[in-house]
Amino acid sequence: MADDDVKAGLEGIVAAETRLSTIDGEAGELVIAGYPVEELAGNARYEETLYLLYHDRLPTEGELAEFEDDLSAHRELDPATREVVEAAGEAGESAMDALRMGVASSTLARGEEEPERDSLLAVAQLPTIVAAYWRARQGEAPVEPHDDLRHAANYLYMLRGEEPTEEEARGLETYLNAVVDHGLNASTFTSRAIVSTESDLISAVTGGVGALKGPLHGGAPGPVLEMLRETADGDTESILRETLEDGDRLMGFGHRVYDVRDPRAAVLEEAAERFYDGDAPDTEFYESARETEEVAQELLEEYQPDLDLATNVEFYTAVLLHGVGVPRELFSTTFAVARVGGWTAHCREQLSDNRLIRPRSKYVGDRGRAWTPIDERE
Amino acid sequence: MADDDVKAGLEGIVAAETRLSTIDGEAGELVIAGYPVEELAGNARYEETLYLLYHDRLPTEGELAEFEDDLSAHRELDPATREVVEAAGEAGESAMDALRMGVASSTLARGEEEPERDSLLAVAQLPTIVAAYWRARQGEAPVEPHDDLRHAANYLYMLRGEEPTEEEARGLETYLNAVVDHGLNASTFTSRAIVSTESDLISAVTGGVGALKGPLHGGAPGPVLEMLRETADGDTESILRETLEDGDRLMGFGHRVYDVRDPRAAVLEEAAERFYDGDAPDTEFYESARETEEVAQELLEEYQPDLDLATNVEFYTAVLLHGVGVPRELFSTTFAVARVGGWTAHCREQLSDNRLIRPRSKYVGDRGRAWTPIDERE
Repeated sequence: MADDDVKAGLEGIVAAETRLSTIDGEAGELVIAGYPVEELAGNARYEETLYLLYHDRLPTEGELAEFEDDLSAHRELDPATREVVEAAGEAGESAMDALRMGVASSTLARGEEEPERDSLLAVAQLPTIVAAYWRARQGEAPVEPHDDLRHAANYLYMLRGEEPTEEEARGLETYLNAVVDHGLNASTFTSRAIVSTESDLISAVTGGVGALKGPLHGGAPGPVLEMLRETADGDTESILRETLEDGDRLMGFGHRVYDVRDPRAAVLEEAAERFYDGDAPDTEFYESARETEEVAQELLEEYQPDLDLATNVEFYTAVLLHGVGVPRELFSTTFAVARVGGWTAHCREQLSDNRLIRPRSKYVGDRGRAWTPIDERE
Repeated sequence: MADDDVKAGLEGIVAAETRLSTIDGEAGELVIAGYPVEELAGNARYEETLYLLYHDRLPTEGELAEFEDDLSAHRELDPATREVVEAAGEAGESAMDALRMGVASSTLARGEEEPERDSLLAVAQLPTIVAAYWRARQGEAPVEPHDDLRHAANYLYMLRGEEPTEEEARGLETYLNAVVDHGLNASTFTSRAIVSTESDLISAVTGGVGALKGPLHGGAPGPVLEMLRETADGDTESILRETLEDGDRLMGFGHRVYDVRDPRAAVLEEAAERFYDGDAPDTEFYESARETEEVAQELLEEYQPDLDLATNVEFYTAVLLHGVGVPRELFSTTFAVARVGGWTAHCREQLSDNRLIRPRSKYVGDRGRAWTPIDERE
């Protein structure tokens, strides 16, 4: 049955069945609970996407209203959670570190463990945690959740203390839908591994945040924004050419899972276009980003002709999130605010037909060592 | 290369090479960094075992002294960590939930991320977190770490506010050594998966705590103590016979990984014997536990002759931890206080030759669903 070959990184090993999402890298397709991402991201409320992941169908009006009420009832932080997160903000900890602290303690705001309620708790607490951290880090007074606002709008409201425009909320919501789930990525797999011991969903989500924090996880659009700010302020071509001459990568192009363009990139490009076509304040930034895309593609053709030239999901994530008003320091935590939908849905799926995830290791160390008293060691 | 067979639970899949520990279930052997567990557990200080796991050799006197100083310098909690953990105690949260909160926020007590220092931080903070939680839960004043006490003794000191006897500290230390690492168990695998994204060790340990919390992880000796308390107060044979007649399991016998006796059980049995042979206060409890073991084995031979009759690691863990003064509610967190040595060593090993752990999933859901506006749904 088993052999002793080490499956490094578990590459190619199928660790779970799922009905939540699938990626066809050759065709450039991402299916989320049956829907092509293009069909879902621009149409659904984030709450509808959550309901879909949990129940494998879209909710009716009555079901959605009840679900939204249940979800928003879990937004408020326990005072101890608020304190630890604000301490993290004041100490200048990274947003992902603060998010790990906050979500780890979010069980203080619940009663008994229960997977369905715990998933709503996790999804509802994450934006409040990120906002509490951010306000403290900026030295600003906390903003309590706003009962009349939906999930995405309330997140932006808590970050800045005023209600976002409909376009801003819609732009963020499209992003949340587009990246809510993406196969068995490292953080999702981590969540499933934790809950497979029959531990609780908050522990699993805490582990997911920890895994998402790592730079190898992917999906970090921060560096793209830095590049776009630089090119907005200077001569685009010479900045990009210099980067390539130095042998550095241009951020925001190509994706290792997709052979053709990542379909989420197109969804987010369209959302950005729609957003900046409205009465967005910073259209100059957008024009500059489009110019950077064009110039970069020309230069990449010259310097790295073998590379995939299409902008990836990080490129338009940076453009869109910057536009709707998410600070660059919160890009990764905003990714978590989206992905927690996938983590919790995967945990529920794992528990519905559970088996402990426990691979083996191959021992490559010594054997048969004998104890040496400390004064005889060299 | 890859096929589409789902490897449920990743059973039999070799996910990593390690020089940290190996289990030979047929022979009943556990090797920890080259040493049979019997050789190590009773001889080493816990700090020596840690050093061994991190450096693959035992320290000299000078190295050990420096290592112990480094380690104990990380014991003190950040005030925000203390507050969240005490809030968990006052709210009656479980000890494992409190430990997840505490360790998640322990980065507040450090400077920059650094794997070597983070491992010392995690190992040193865990006992202080557990003690802070426990004192708050009991409504007692917190006890600060004691600089002159070594790791195991200081843990007992912070729990009760007075220095333990040398026998108590030694008994606990033997337990910590015996269970410090045990191949690629679920929590250790989780830690490696998290750090494989190049996330930090505190995030990885937080995930490990979350996985260890689950009842399927194994290693929960609490129920054994409940059984032993019951048999200490009543008629052993009729209590055990009733359990078996009801079709329930007797806790503390057999282990799924070992065909013969788990070598840690023998180590802990010997440690318990040594401990209660001294001037331990509760020798009656010990005598009763030994009687329960004997009667249970006779009855198991009668009721479940196919079962492995040997007491497992949980049985003598319960006897020993109860003896040295660890409350039953802290058995799982005390397991974590030991296992964090393994988690951190595995993380360092993973990072030394890292590859992202990212298996695949097999999609079993629908495809090609088309968006239905909410008022057209049924």
